[in-house]
Amino acid sequence: MSESAGTTGLRRPGGRTARTRARVLEAVTSLLVETGFDGLGIDAVAERSGVHRATVYRRWRDVGGLLADVFDAAADDDWAPADTGSLLGDLIALNREVFASLRDATSVTRALIAASFRSAPAAAALRAFWRDRYRRCAVVVSRAQARGELPDGVDAHRVLVMATAPLYHRLILMGEPPDPVMAEDAARDAVSAVTAG
Amino acid sequence: MSESAGTTGLRRPGGRTARTRARVLEAVTSLLVETGFDGLGIDAVAERSGVHRATVYRRWRDVGGLLADVFDAAADDDWAPADTGSLLGDLIALNREVFASLRDATSVTRALIAASFRSAPAAAALRAFWRDRYRRCAVVVSRAQARGELPDGVDAHRVLVMATAPLYHRLILMGEPPDPVMAEDAARDAVSAVTAG
Repeated sequence: MSESAGTTGLRRPGGRTARTRARVLEAVTSLLVETGFDGLGIDAVAERSGVHRATVYRRWRDVGGLLADVFDAAADDDWAPADTGSLLGDLIALNREVFASLRDATSVTRALIAASFRSAPAAAALRAFWRDRYRRCAVVVSRAQARGELPDGVDAHRVLVMATAPLYHRLILMGEPPDPVMAEDAARDAVSAVTAG
Repeated sequence: MSESAGTTGLRRPGGRTARTRARVLEAVTSLLVETGFDGLGIDAVAERSGVHRATVYRRWRDVGGLLADVFDAAADDDWAPADTGSLLGDLIALNREVFASLRDATSVTRALIAASFRSAPAAAALRAFWRDRYRRCAVVVSRAQARGELPDGVDAHRVLVMATAPLYHRLILMGEPPDPVMAEDAARDAVSAVTAG
Protein backbone atom coordinates (compact mmCIF):
# COMPACT_ATOMS: atom_id res chain seq x y z
CA MET A 1 0.00 0.00 0.00
CA SER A 2 1.29 3.46 -0.90
CA GLU A 3 2.54 5.65 1.93
CA SER A 4 1.97 8.75 -0.20
CA ALA A 5 -1.02 10.97 0.30
CA GLY A 6 -3.27 9.47 -2.33
CA THR A 7 -6.97 9.42 -1.69
CA THR A 8 -6.97 5.87 -0.36
CA GLY A 9 -3.32 5.26 0.57
CA LEU A 10 -3.18 7.67 3.49
CA ARG A 11 -3.54 6.14 6.94
CA ARG A 12 -6.04 8.45 8.44
CA PRO A 13 -7.75 8.33 11.84
CA GLY A 14 -10.64 5.94 11.53
CA GLY A 15 -8.82 3.96 8.86
CA ARG A 16 -7.78 0.33 8.91
CA THR A 17 -4.93 0.84 11.38
CA ALA A 18 -7.19 2.69 13.79
CA ARG A 19 -9.81 -0.04 13.55
CA THR A 20 -7.22 -2.73 14.26
CA ARG A 21 -6.03 -0.80 17.29
CA ALA A 22 -9.57 -0.32 18.57
CA ARG A 23 -10.30 -4.06 18.23
CA VAL A 24 -7.09 -5.04 20.00
CA LEU A 25 -7.55 -2.59 22.88
CA GLU A 26 -11.18 -3.62 23.31
CA ALA A 27 -9.97 -7.23 23.56
CA VAL A 28 -7.39 -6.20 26.19
CA THR A 29 -9.90 -4.48 28.47
CA SER A 30 -12.59 -7.14 28.11
CA LEU A 31 -10.10 -9.94 28.84
CA LEU A 32 -8.73 -7.98 31.79
CA VAL A 33 -12.17 -7.57 33.34
CA GLU A 34 -13.13 -11.20 32.68
CA THR A 35 -9.95 -13.04 33.56
CA GLY A 36 -7.69 -10.55 35.32
CA PHE A 37 -4.07 -9.85 34.50
CA ASP A 38 -3.16 -13.54 34.42
CA GLY A 39 -5.55 -14.13 31.53
CA LEU A 40 -3.89 -11.47 29.38
CA GLY A 41 -1.39 -12.47 26.72
CA ILE A 42 -0.55 -11.89 23.09
CA ASP A 43 -2.28 -15.12 22.07
CA ALA A 44 -5.47 -14.47 24.01
CA VAL A 45 -5.66 -10.90 22.70
CA ALA A 46 -5.08 -12.05 19.12
CA GLU A 47 -7.80 -14.68 19.42
CA ARG A 48 -10.32 -12.36 21.08
CA SER A 49 -9.72 -9.48 18.67
CA GLY A 50 -9.42 -11.51 15.48
CA VAL A 51 -6.19 -9.63 14.70
CA HIS A 52 -3.24 -11.74 13.59
CA ARG A 53 -0.88 -12.73 16.40
CA ALA A 54 2.13 -11.43 14.42
CA THR A 55 0.48 -8.03 14.08
CA VAL A 56 -0.26 -7.81 17.80
CA TYR A 57 3.28 -8.86 18.66
CA ARG A 58 4.92 -6.48 16.16
CA ARG A 59 2.95 -3.45 17.28
CA TRP A 60 2.54 -3.99 21.04
CA ARG A 61 5.27 -6.52 21.87
CA ASP A 62 3.90 -7.68 25.25
CA VAL A 63 1.21 -7.22 27.88
CA GLY A 64 2.90 -4.09 29.23
CA GLY A 65 2.81 -2.53 25.76
CA LEU A 66 -0.84 -3.46 25.32
CA LEU A 67 -1.86 -1.97 28.68
CA ALA A 68 0.17 1.19 28.15
CA ASP A 69 -1.60 1.70 24.82
CA VAL A 70 -5.00 1.34 26.50
CA PHE A 71 -4.16 4.44 28.55
CA ASP A 72 -2.62 6.27 25.59
CA ALA A 73 -5.81 5.68 23.62
CA ALA A 74 -8.00 6.71 26.56
CA ALA A 75 -6.06 9.97 26.93
CA ASP A 76 -6.51 10.77 23.23
CA ASP A 77 -9.92 12.34 23.61
CA ASP A 78 -11.40 15.76 24.20
CA TRP A 79 -12.68 15.07 27.71
CA ALA A 80 -13.08 18.17 29.86
CA PRO A 81 -14.70 18.65 33.26
CA ALA A 82 -18.30 19.85 33.27
CA ASP A 83 -18.81 23.62 33.60
CA THR A 84 -21.74 23.95 36.00
CA GLY A 85 -21.17 27.55 37.08
CA SER A 86 -19.86 26.86 40.59
CA LEU A 87 -16.86 25.19 42.20
CA LEU A 88 -19.08 22.85 44.20
CA GLY A 89 -21.14 21.91 41.16
CA ASP A 90 -18.04 21.22 39.08
CA LEU A 91 -16.45 19.04 41.79
CA ILE A 92 -19.67 17.10 42.36
CA ALA A 93 -19.95 16.47 38.61
CA LEU A 94 -16.32 15.34 38.50
CA ASN A 95 -16.73 13.08 41.49
CA ARG A 96 -19.85 11.52 40.03
CA GLU A 97 -17.79 10.54 37.00
CA VAL A 98 -15.04 9.10 39.22
CA PHE A 99 -17.61 7.28 41.33
CA ALA A 100 -19.30 5.79 38.26
CA SER A 101 -15.95 4.54 36.96
CA LEU A 102 -15.11 2.80 40.25
CA ARG A 103 -18.51 1.64 41.50
CA ASP A 104 -18.82 -1.78 39.91
CA ALA A 105 -16.62 -4.73 40.80
CA THR A 106 -16.36 -5.37 37.04
CA SER A 107 -15.36 -1.81 36.11
CA VAL A 108 -12.58 -1.39 33.57
CA THR A 109 -10.94 1.24 35.78
CA ARG A 110 -10.74 -1.15 38.73
CA ALA A 111 -9.21 -3.81 36.50
CA LEU A 112 -6.69 -1.35 35.08
CA ILE A 113 -5.68 -0.15 38.57
CA ALA A 114 -5.16 -3.77 39.63
CA ALA A 115 -3.09 -4.41 36.48
CA SER A 116 -0.91 -1.39 37.27
CA PHE A 117 0.36 -3.35 40.31
CA ARG A 118 1.55 -6.12 37.93
CA SER A 119 3.18 -4.18 35.13
CA ALA A 120 5.54 -1.21 35.38
CA PRO A 121 4.62 0.08 31.89
CA ALA A 122 0.93 -0.13 32.82
CA ALA A 123 1.59 1.74 36.08
CA ALA A 124 3.53 4.46 34.27
CA ALA A 125 0.80 4.82 31.66
CA LEU A 126 -1.98 4.94 34.25
CA ARG A 127 -0.16 7.67 36.17
CA ALA A 128 0.46 9.66 33.00
CA PHE A 129 -3.24 9.33 32.19
CA TRP A 130 -4.26 10.56 35.64
CA ARG A 131 -1.77 13.44 35.55
CA ASP A 132 -3.27 14.53 32.25
CA ARG A 133 -6.80 14.29 33.65
CA TYR A 134 -5.89 16.34 36.76
CA ARG A 135 -4.24 18.95 34.52
CA ARG A 136 -7.41 19.24 32.47
CA CYS A 137 -9.38 19.64 35.71
CA ALA A 138 -7.29 22.62 36.82
CA VAL A 139 -9.73 24.78 34.85
CA VAL A 140 -12.32 24.02 37.55
CA VAL A 141 -10.15 25.95 40.01
CA SER A 142 -9.21 28.76 37.63
CA ARG A 143 -12.88 29.30 36.72
CA ALA A 144 -13.70 29.51 40.45
CA GLN A 145 -10.93 32.08 40.83
CA ALA A 146 -12.26 34.09 37.88
CA ARG A 147 -15.71 34.09 39.52
CA GLY A 148 -14.19 35.27 42.79
CA GLU A 149 -15.12 32.03 44.59
CA LEU A 150 -11.47 31.29 45.38
CA PRO A 151 -8.45 33.50 46.01
CA ASP A 152 -5.43 33.38 43.74
CA GLY A 153 -2.60 31.12 44.82
CA VAL A 154 -4.74 28.07 45.52
CA ASP A 155 -2.94 24.84 44.55
CA ALA A 156 -5.33 23.33 41.99
CA HIS A 157 -3.84 19.84 42.18
CA ARG A 158 -4.17 19.81 45.96
CA VAL A 159 -7.86 20.80 45.74
CA LEU A 160 -8.60 18.22 43.07
CA VAL A 161 -6.83 15.43 44.95
CA MET A 162 -8.66 16.39 48.14
CA ALA A 163 -11.98 16.08 46.30
CA THR A 164 -11.29 12.81 44.49
CA ALA A 165 -8.89 10.85 46.73
CA PRO A 166 -11.55 9.75 49.26
CA LEU A 167 -13.42 7.95 46.48
CA TYR A 168 -10.36 5.96 45.38
CA HIS A 169 -9.46 5.26 49.00
CA ARG A 170 -12.90 4.09 50.10
CA LEU A 171 -13.89 2.18 46.97
CA ILE A 172 -10.58 0.69 45.81
CA LEU A 173 -8.31 0.34 48.84
CA MET A 174 -10.82 0.13 51.71
CA GLY A 175 -13.40 -1.82 49.71
CA GLU A 176 -16.33 0.07 51.22
CA PRO A 177 -19.78 -0.51 49.70
CA PRO A 178 -20.36 2.13 47.00
CA ASP A 179 -22.71 4.88 48.15
CA PRO A 180 -23.34 7.77 45.73
CA VAL A 181 -23.32 10.23 48.63
CA MET A 182 -19.56 9.65 48.92
CA ALA A 183 -19.06 11.63 45.70
CA GLU A 184 -21.00 14.62 46.98
CA ASP A 185 -19.53 14.50 50.51
CA ALA A 186 -15.95 14.55 49.23
CA ALA A 187 -16.69 17.43 46.86
CA ARG A 188 -18.33 19.43 49.67
CA ASP A 189 -15.42 18.77 52.01
CA ALA A 190 -12.91 19.97 49.44
CA VAL A 191 -14.88 23.18 48.87
CA SER A 192 -15.19 23.76 52.63
CA ALA A 193 -11.45 23.28 53.10
CA VAL A 194 -10.42 25.57 50.30
CA THR A 195 -12.88 28.35 51.06
CA ALA A 196 -12.32 28.24 54.84
CA GLY A 197 -8.91 29.91 54.77
CA MET B 1 2.71 -31.94 75.43
CA SER B 2 0.05 -31.37 78.07
CA GLU B 3 -2.78 -28.99 77.24
CA SER B 4 -3.47 -28.50 80.95
CA ALA B 5 -2.24 -25.40 82.75
CA GLY B 6 0.97 -26.79 84.14
CA THR B 7 3.90 -24.45 84.58
CA THR B 8 5.54 -25.43 81.29
CA GLY B 9 2.76 -27.05 79.29
CA LEU B 10 0.70 -23.90 78.77
CA ARG B 11 1.10 -22.22 75.40
CA ARG B 12 1.53 -18.70 76.49
CA PRO B 13 2.18 -15.54 74.40
CA GLY B 14 5.91 -15.37 73.74
CA GLY B 15 6.17 -19.15 73.85
CA ARG B 16 7.31 -21.53 71.15
CA THR B 17 4.17 -21.20 69.06
CA ALA B 18 4.36 -17.42 69.14
CA ARG B 19 8.03 -17.52 68.12
CA THR B 20 7.26 -19.84 65.21
CA ARG B 21 4.51 -17.51 64.04
CA ALA B 22 6.79 -14.47 64.32
CA ARG B 23 9.50 -16.20 62.24
CA VAL B 24 7.04 -17.28 59.56
CA LEU B 25 5.36 -13.88 59.25
CA GLU B 26 8.74 -12.12 59.15
CA ALA B 27 9.70 -14.44 56.29
CA VAL B 28 6.43 -13.60 54.48
CA THR B 29 6.96 -9.83 54.63
CA SER B 30 10.66 -9.94 53.76
CA LEU B 31 10.01 -12.25 50.78
CA LEU B 32 7.13 -10.06 49.66
CA VAL B 33 9.28 -6.92 49.67
CA GLU B 34 12.21 -8.67 47.95
CA THR B 35 10.46 -10.79 45.34
CA GLY B 36 6.86 -9.60 45.21
CA PHE B 37 3.77 -11.77 45.36
CA ASP B 38 5.09 -14.20 42.76
CA GLY B 39 8.03 -15.12 45.00
CA LEU B 40 5.74 -16.09 47.87
CA GLY B 41 4.93 -19.74 48.48
CA ILE B 42 4.82 -22.30 51.25
CA ASP B 43 8.24 -23.68 50.24
CA ALA B 44 9.97 -20.32 50.08
CA VAL B 45 8.47 -19.26 53.42
CA ALA B 46 9.51 -22.54 55.05
CA GLU B 47 13.04 -22.18 53.75
CA ARG B 48 13.41 -18.53 54.73
CA SER B 49 11.91 -18.97 58.20
CA GLY B 50 13.55 -22.29 59.04
CA VAL B 51 10.13 -23.62 60.05
CA HIS B 52 9.18 -27.05 58.72
CA ARG B 53 7.14 -27.00 55.51
CA ALA B 54 4.49 -29.30 57.05
CA THR B 55 4.04 -26.89 59.96
CA VAL B 56 3.62 -23.91 57.64
CA TYR B 57 1.17 -25.82 55.48
CA ARG B 58 -0.85 -27.15 58.42
CA ARG B 59 -1.22 -23.80 60.12
CA TRP B 60 -1.49 -21.35 57.19
CA ARG B 61 -2.51 -23.58 54.28
CA ASP B 62 -1.56 -21.19 51.45
CA VAL B 63 -0.29 -17.73 50.54
CA GLY B 64 -3.69 -16.18 51.24
CA GLY B 65 -3.64 -17.62 54.74
CA LEU B 66 -0.10 -16.37 55.34
CA LEU B 67 -0.92 -12.85 54.18
CA ALA B 68 -4.15 -12.71 56.17
CA ASP B 69 -2.21 -13.68 59.29
CA VAL B 70 0.29 -10.87 58.69
CA PHE B 71 -2.57 -8.42 59.08
CA ASP B 72 -4.10 -10.28 62.01
CA ALA B 73 -0.75 -10.15 63.80
CA ALA B 74 -0.27 -6.47 62.95
CA ALA B 75 -3.70 -5.63 64.37
CA ASP B 76 -2.91 -7.44 67.62
CA ASP B 77 -1.12 -4.53 69.23
CA ASP B 78 -1.97 -1.57 71.42
CA TRP B 79 -1.40 1.09 68.80
CA ALA B 80 -3.30 4.32 69.42
CA PRO B 81 -3.10 7.69 67.73
CA ALA B 82 -0.89 10.30 69.39
CA ASP B 83 -2.64 12.71 71.78
CA THR B 84 -1.06 16.08 71.00
CA GLY B 85 -3.73 18.31 72.48
CA SER B 86 -5.27 19.57 69.23
CA LEU B 87 -7.13 18.14 66.26
CA LEU B 88 -4.55 19.50 63.83
CA GLY B 89 -1.66 18.14 65.87
CA ASP B 90 -3.26 14.72 66.12
CA LEU B 91 -3.98 14.53 62.39
CA ILE B 92 -0.48 15.70 61.47
CA ALA B 93 1.00 13.04 63.78
CA LEU B 94 -1.25 10.39 62.22
CA ASN B 95 -0.41 11.47 58.69
CA ARG B 96 3.30 11.42 59.44
CA GLU B 97 2.93 7.77 60.44
CA VAL B 98 0.98 7.01 57.26
CA PHE B 99 3.54 8.90 55.18
CA ALA B 100 6.45 7.04 56.79
CA SER B 101 4.76 3.71 56.05
CA LEU B 102 4.26 4.56 52.36
CA ARG B 103 7.30 6.67 51.53
CA ASP B 104 9.82 4.05 50.46
CA ALA B 105 9.47 1.93 47.35
CA THR B 106 10.52 -1.03 49.51
CA SER B 107 7.99 -0.40 52.29
CA VAL B 108 6.13 -3.40 53.69
CA THR B 109 2.86 -1.50 53.49
CA ARG B 110 3.29 -0.88 49.75
CA ALA B 111 4.09 -4.54 49.21
CA LEU B 112 1.04 -5.61 51.22
CA ILE B 113 -1.25 -3.25 49.30
CA ALA B 114 0.07 -4.67 46.02
CA ALA B 115 -0.46 -8.22 47.33
CA SER B 116 -4.05 -7.37 48.24
CA PHE B 117 -4.73 -7.06 44.49
CA ARG B 118 -3.59 -10.67 44.06
CA SER B 119 -5.28 -12.46 46.92
CA ALA B 120 -8.86 -12.08 48.12
CA PRO B 121 -8.01 -13.22 51.69
CA ALA B 122 -5.16 -10.69 51.80
CA ALA B 123 -7.50 -7.94 50.57
CA ALA B 124 -10.12 -8.83 53.18
CA ALA B 125 -7.50 -8.88 55.93
CA LEU B 126 -5.96 -5.56 54.85
CA ARG B 127 -9.38 -3.93 54.86
CA ALA B 128 -10.21 -5.35 58.29
CA PHE B 129 -6.87 -4.02 59.53
CA TRP B 130 -7.55 -0.56 58.16
CA ARG B 131 -11.13 -0.52 59.52
CA ASP B 132 -9.72 -1.32 62.95
CA ARG B 133 -7.11 1.42 62.65
CA TYR B 134 -9.71 4.00 61.59
CA ARG B 135 -11.94 2.95 64.49
CA ARG B 136 -9.05 3.47 66.91
CA CYS B 137 -8.49 6.92 65.38
CA ALA B 138 -12.07 8.00 66.04
CA VAL B 139 -10.85 9.13 69.46
CA VAL B 140 -9.02 11.97 67.68
CA VAL B 141 -12.39 13.37 66.68
CA SER B 142 -14.12 12.71 70.02
CA ARG B 143 -11.26 14.41 71.90
CA ALA B 144 -11.62 17.44 69.60
CA GLN B 145 -15.35 17.47 70.36
CA ALA B 146 -14.65 17.26 74.11
CA ARG B 147 -12.30 20.26 73.78
CA GLY B 148 -14.96 22.18 71.86
CA GLU B 149 -12.87 22.24 68.67
CA LEU B 150 -15.56 20.39 66.75
CA PRO B 151 -19.36 20.27 67.02
CA ASP B 152 -21.14 17.03 67.84
CA GLY B 153 -22.43 15.06 64.89
CA VAL B 154 -19.21 15.15 62.89
CA ASP B 155 -18.62 11.88 61.00
CA ALA B 156 -15.26 10.71 62.38
CA HIS B 157 -14.58 8.25 59.56
CA ARG B 158 -15.23 10.93 56.96
CA VAL B 159 -12.78 13.32 58.66
CA LEU B 160 -10.10 10.65 59.03
CA VAL B 161 -10.44 9.50 55.42
CA MET B 162 -10.28 13.12 54.25
CA ALA B 163 -7.01 13.57 56.13
CA THR B 164 -5.33 10.34 55.08
CA ALA B 165 -6.72 9.50 51.61
CA PRO B 166 -4.60 12.09 49.73
CA LEU B 167 -1.43 10.34 50.97
CA TYR B 168 -2.52 6.94 49.67
CA HIS B 169 -3.73 8.48 46.43
CA ARG B 170 -0.60 10.51 45.71
CA LEU B 171 2.00 8.01 46.90
CA ILE B 172 0.45 4.66 45.93
CA LEU B 173 -1.91 5.25 43.02
CA MET B 174 -0.48 8.42 41.43
CA GLY B 175 3.13 7.53 42.19
CA GLU B 176 4.07 11.11 43.06
CA PRO B 177 7.51 11.70 44.62
CA PRO B 178 7.18 11.58 48.41
CA ASP B 179 7.26 15.03 50.00
CA PRO B 180 6.76 15.23 53.79
CA VAL B 181 4.68 18.39 53.34
CA MET B 182 1.93 16.21 51.85
CA ALA B 183 1.22 14.82 55.31
CA GLU B 184 0.82 18.24 56.87
CA ASP B 185 -1.14 19.70 53.95
CA ALA B 186 -3.72 16.93 54.01
CA ALA B 187 -4.13 17.21 57.78
CA ARG B 188 -4.61 20.99 57.52
CA ASP B 189 -7.13 20.61 54.71
CA ALA B 190 -9.17 18.13 56.73
CA VAL B 191 -9.23 20.47 59.74
CA SER B 192 -10.21 23.41 57.53
CA ALA B 193 -13.03 21.43 55.97
CA VAL B 194 -14.46 20.17 59.23
CA THR B 195 -14.20 23.44 61.13
CA ALA B 196 -15.48 25.57 58.23
CA GLY B 197 -19.11 24.53 58.56
